[in-house]
Amino acid sequence: MVRIALDVMGGDRGSELAISGAISAIREHSDFEVILLGPRELLEKQVADSGVAGNLAARLHIEHAPEAISMNESPVEAVRRKKQSSIMVGFDLARNGRVDAVVSAGNSGATLASAVRKLGRLKGVSRPGIASLFPTLKRPVIIMDVGANVDCRPLHLFQFAIMASSCSRKLLDIKHPRIGLLSIGEEAGKGNALVKETHELLAASSLNFIGNVEGRDIYQGDVDVIVCDGFVGNISLKVSEGLAEAAMQMLRTEIMKTFRAKIGYMLIRRAFESFRKRVDYAEYGGAPLLGINGTGIISHGKSNATAIKNAIEVAANMYRSRLNESILISLEEYSS
Amino acid sequence: MVRIALDVMGGDRGSELAISGAISAIREHSDFEVILLGPRELLEKQVADSGVAGNLAARLHIEHAPEAISMNESPVEAVRRKKQSSIMVGFDLARNGRVDAVVSAGNSGATLASAVRKLGRLKGVSRPGIASLFPTLKRPVIIMDVGANVDCRPLHLFQFAIMASSCSRKLLDIKHPRIGLLSIGEEAGKGNALVKETHELLAASSLNFIGNVEGRDIYQGDVDVIVCDGFVGNISLKVSEGLAEAAMQMLRTEIMKTFRAKIGYMLIRRAFESFRKRVDYAEYGGAPLLGINGTGIISHGKSNATAIKNAIEVAANMYRSRLNESILISLEEYSS
Repeated sequence: MVRIALDVMGGDRGSELAISGAISAIREHSDFEVILLGPRELLEKQVADSGVAGNLAARLHIEHAPEAISMNESPVEAVRRKKQSSIMVGFDLARNGRVDAVVSAGNSGATLASAVRKLGRLKGVSRPGIASLFPTLKRPVIIMDVGANVDCRPLHLFQFAIMASSCSRKLLDIKHPRIGLLSIGEEAGKGNALVKETHELLAASSLNFIGNVEGRDIYQGDVDVIVCDGFVGNISLKVSEGLAEAAMQMLRTEIMKTFRAKIGYMLIRRAFESFRKRVDYAEYGGAPLLGINGTGIISHGKSNATAIKNAIEVAANMYRSRLNESILISLEEYSS
Repeated sequence: MVRIALDVMGGDRGSELAISGAISAIREHSDFEVILLGPRELLEKQVADSGVAGNLAARLHIEHAPEAISMNESPVEAVRRKKQSSIMVGFDLARNGRVDAVVSAGNSGATLASAVRKLGRLKGVSRPGIASLFPTLKRPVIIMDVGANVDCRPLHLFQFAIMASSCSRKLLDIKHPRIGLLSIGEEAGKGNALVKETHELLAASSLNFIGNVEGRDIYQGDVDVIVCDGFVGNISLKVSEGLAEAAMQMLRTEIMKTFRAKIGYMLIRRAFESFRKRVDYAEYGGAPLLGINGTGIISHGKSNATAIKNAIEVAANMYRSRLNESILISLEEYSS
């Protein structure tokens, strides 16, 4: 059994959706148990309403957490004040060995802050961070950091490279992940002060560093790990989401302008759907927290049931793959 | 007459394409003159091959420039060494009052460096930069800086806001441009150190500052000017280009998988084309250099003939709108 705690209070879309994702996960995986985190009375009612029963119901638990941290709260402050919040209760269960991993669709800063507070950092890690899987024309690329650390030093980015490489090996089964440094030109001298210094560190190491990559390389799939500070990573993520949404909207508007195109769209709709699926964050399920002494996954704030289910699967894989052991070994190997 | 110098040596696509863009521009605008910059013999041959004649040919001139700066050269060094390069010759013509504006599809750092060297900065400007027009669901947004200044101080971003607002008023006819600061959350406290300090400066000013905007807001069109440092701006630009290209490629792959969808695509093609046109950088034509004592436009490195023609038009508009006078007045008004 893998036991996953799921913070159902954090997402923008409400706890019912999260519960439905949890039920899908335990239905598909007979060795999963999910512990829902939130106000007991509310969750008991919603679970009952879902009609789940028998063997499934036996693998769906509730852990009472009366408080919730909203998306707009300051992470550090919220974590200090709300000791009974669903996310804090989740990492408390992890600390006490009662769950193997925690999944949250809530405030990502608060999720990381809770994890660090309750579980601590892995030995040798300066700054834990959030990795994220981006779809590409080939296999997905892992980008780190995507929001936890907005002001970084070169050593932080160097460690992101090590941790994200382990993640790429363990979660995506890529033997020798190619590491790129996000910059504004391919030459070593291009970039801001942080990037130039990080480039030197990476180039001097025995990591599989292929040099600077540009924003447009993210989606080509010719690099497996991209490192950047959390400000730049988060902007890249949000710009991509915003453009994808806007582009679909513009395209739909153009299509709806003529009858001929409307007919065409009906014929093409399935291709559109499978395209949407391919670029949809929901299919990727979650962003692993790397550098904490435990297993945590942040699901997208707008997560739907599929995204939650996938995040639970990623959490289980991450826990079983012993990713943290691999990170510890790599940190020692490449930092010496 | 507006006299535009066009660096035909800088683009990735060669000088013939640039010449064809120049001919379109003077054909559509009887009050434009274009001065082509490059090796005289080569350009004379290409102009002859284009078949241009009569009144058009009379408004197409050549200024000899034996050297060219390539995309990968270090801007500062190239500008120092290559005094006879097409772009340096262009800004020299501008300094001597022989042209009103310069357009280059080449190395953007070198273009800005040449402009600063030959024309100088506008009084009061700490850092000239590159503004860029992004398409949105509504009207275009101007983002500054998109690559010239990778390590910025708050004052630089503050001045970008002033200069880009003038540009929005003069070029896009927006009376009271709404200014946003690119960050990773809407609240004032979100962002890196640079953004937090810049937020204070902007909020304390009488500029039309609407607060932080996120990456996904770029394409919604609810903000007219977005300021950021050149590293973040350039990454945003390149991520967008890369995603747009990759998305079209993925969508086409999906469509080509079934016969039904192929037929659908044929019916839909015109809608696709008009969508492509709407998001295509080429339709926007060029990125104005702001903060230099003259008029300069950088066209996209992959510019096609339409992009070159549009860049020439933007340059002419910029010159005629007396944008620099407006920037000088605003700088004085908002900096005191």
